[in-house]
Amino acid sequence: MKSFEMKPVIAISIGDPSGIGPEVTLKALAKLSPGSNYLYCLVGDYAYLKACAKRFKLNLSLEKLDSDVPALTGRGKIVVLDLGGAEKSKWGKISASSGTAAVHYIIKGAQLALEGKAAALVTAPISKEAIHKAGCIFPGHTELLAHLSNRKDFAMMMVGGPFKIALQSIHMSLKDALKEITRPKVFEKLELTYKSLQTWFGIKKPRIAIAGVNPHAGENGAFGDEERSILKPVIQKARKLGWDVTGPHPPDTLYYWASKGRFDAVLCMYHDQVLIPFKLVSFEQGVNMTLGLPFIRTSPDHGTAFDIAGKGKADPSSMIAAIQLAGQLGEKGL
Amino acid sequence: MKSFEMKPVIAISIGDPSGIGPEVTLKALAKLSPGSNYLYCLVGDYAYLKACAKRFKLNLSLEKLDSDVPALTGRGKIVVLDLGGAEKSKWGKISASSGTAAVHYIIKGAQLALEGKAAALVTAPISKEAIHKAGCIFPGHTELLAHLSNRKDFAMMMVGGPFKIALQSIHMSLKDALKEITRPKVFEKLELTYKSLQTWFGIKKPRIAIAGVNPHAGENGAFGDEERSILKPVIQKARKLGWDVTGPHPPDTLYYWASKGRFDAVLCMYHDQVLIPFKLVSFEQGVNMTLGLPFIRTSPDHGTAFDIAGKGKADPSSMIAAIQLAGQLGEKGL
Repeated sequence: MKSFEMKPVIAISIGDPSGIGPEVTLKALAKLSPGSNYLYCLVGDYAYLKACAKRFKLNLSLEKLDSDVPALTGRGKIVVLDLGGAEKSKWGKISASSGTAAVHYIIKGAQLALEGKAAALVTAPISKEAIHKAGCIFPGHTELLAHLSNRKDFAMMMVGGPFKIALQSIHMSLKDALKEITRPKVFEKLELTYKSLQTWFGIKKPRIAIAGVNPHAGENGAFGDEERSILKPVIQKARKLGWDVTGPHPPDTLYYWASKGRFDAVLCMYHDQVLIPFKLVSFEQGVNMTLGLPFIRTSPDHGTAFDIAGKGKADPSSMIAAIQLAGQLGEKGL
Repeated sequence: MKSFEMKPVIAISIGDPSGIGPEVTLKALAKLSPGSNYLYCLVGDYAYLKACAKRFKLNLSLEKLDSDVPALTGRGKIVVLDLGGAEKSKWGKISASSGTAAVHYIIKGAQLALEGKAAALVTAPISKEAIHKAGCIFPGHTELLAHLSNRKDFAMMMVGGPFKIALQSIHMSLKDALKEITRPKVFEKLELTYKSLQTWFGIKKPRIAIAGVNPHAGENGAFGDEERSILKPVIQKARKLGWDVTGPHPPDTLYYWASKGRFDAVLCMYHDQVLIPFKLVSFEQGVNMTLGLPFIRTSPDHGTAFDIAGKGKADPSSMIAAIQLAGQLGEKGL
């Protein structure tokens, strides 16, 4: 893996062309590119992005690339690796053609990162319904990128404001999420979180809090037993390794203390246990990142917002935060 | 049931004497009682409360009552219905004697409210472990008060800042909480929420949002089916009755919109789905109230805090909010 010192390229897949992905990407780069150290390589449809820049009145210089990314050149520049595909896209409309284009952009973006041609991949939002119409079976970016990278141990982490929160499971029913809480699986996510904090965030001895599953973390077994039978043994194992891991913490006060900076990260037990507090506190600046991939991957914490697509109303804050985080992680030196 | 116009008495059970209940109660009344319209009837141990007032340097006039509450007299006064019981209590120590006393205070407070001698009951925090040592089998105030009132349909509602959130289930494992999500049980809590908003909060046509169970509210059945098979039919039934009920909403954005005032109340599907965002946003001013009792009951949203008991450090904000809410609800006229 290459560090940003060697190859300051951030690849950005522009997401579903019918959504707000192209808009927030271009708006974010209008803010970030002047004077930047990075070369931004958009993976998308050049003609469409040019039209978007005009539509949203953004004074951006976009350079077309037909094949591959130039290395070590053009800091602050924005190039577009042109895969076409957005010709039939209509604002706010779910379609197989937009879904297909979005999947191609992700695959090419991942390839750039996997080959070391880009040090990070930022992904703009896709529509799950559109990619399913296009025949892509994955429930989201995270799972698709893990598949493309041939990684089975991966995790989503939400980063924003005071929070870094890794998820034990992502897109599955709450009933199924409970089945993902086993000793080996929790230890696997804990290890991934621990090592990612060391490697990517440069925290030598990360303080990690593990959330309980049940109200009041089970109140000594009165409301559920996962804390005693699964989480405590995992924490004991981690502490024997010298890791600073605490818990299981009552979920309803944990995020409050996490918001005060008491931990470097939290490992939470199911999707909404983190997404609820996270979206409440970091609604506009939240970033989703993937742990366990061989490259840095971040994305904004919002969807395609089809209802406002094409209207120029989309807020690029989360995309700006995602691109900035990709840059910061790169600077730690992989 | 009597309104506050007739009987401006707020009963307050002082909670576990070894915890911060007596302290936050007295601190709250030091702030609220001057010029107040209400007579505050503490249910607890007179000698202990006198000693607490001195310990915490609170200049309060406490009048001892040996039997019952005077009606229609003494607005702004603080009387103590003396049940004793705190003689053996030690700050921060869990004991059967403190637990027994706390249960007696609740039972007497509930009796005052049930007999119409008090229009509201505010309960200071108890220790579940202490009441269990004392032989009381209930997991908390809510269930005990429902039992004393002979009510089977009851619900906890969290009130604070921008939120009014009713809970489908309270103190049980997440696994068991999922079993509480059935069409009849959800409709029961919805009806209770709807009617309580009308009766107690004076909202003629309440706007109620129902939270989904699963990530993204199941994303059309992709991640769980409770939304399609249970929640949607309940919402349809409610809408046929002319109720303004929407959902099931994706839980991770619902609380954000609720915090912006888009709904009068939310019905959420399990304990931590609300307690996590609630404690994050309303940590110090949150109030817990019970729907479905024949009287108004509120309590602060914190525990006995044994670690700081007796030290004078307890923050009375949540208790103040609980007493104020009891008063406001009473003023709507029951």
